[in-house]
Amino acid sequence: MKVSAIITLKKDVLDPQGKVIQQALDGMGFKDVNEVRQGKYFEIDVKEDDPKKSRKIVEDMCNKLLANLVIEDYKIIEIQ
Amino acid sequence: MKVSAIITLKKDVLDPQGKVIQQALDGMGFKDVNEVRQGKYFEIDVKEDDPKKSRKIVEDMCNKLLANLVIEDYKIIEIQ
Repeated sequence: MKVSAIITLKKDVLDPQGKVIQQALDGMGFKDVNEVRQGKYFEIDVKEDDPKKSRKIVEDMCNKLLANLVIEDYKIIEIQ
Repeated sequence: MKVSAIITLKKDVLDPQGKVIQQALDGMGFKDVNEVRQGKYFEIDVKEDDPKKSRKIVEDMCNKLLANLVIEDYKIIEIQ
């Protein structure tokens, strides 16, 4: 199954990359932006047909490799 | 409103970064992975209270700055 996960910086962690994007948008005329935060997106195709087990595997991957849990959170957004 | 967008490489575009992540996962014992594809995630807080207009603004941003439409697709996944 294909599992989609998002990894974002925790709320209180500064996101300088998002800030730069916001400034770039501002320079292009998008003035009404409060905040931009950037994160990572992973689409992982695992050899497992059970949605629950697939989710478990990807959560495990996020915990062990994909996310730095000190400053990041992860969220599984789709399993199909 | 906060609009969340995902930008991914188009299906036929090679994703070497995803490949490396897959190899790293393999090295950590996650052997049953068919494919990993990486993308970008943006959470954009716009000064606009109408969901439809907010979506329009962020689609516009994706078209003009955030996504390279030659090799990437974007998708609005959440508006809140």
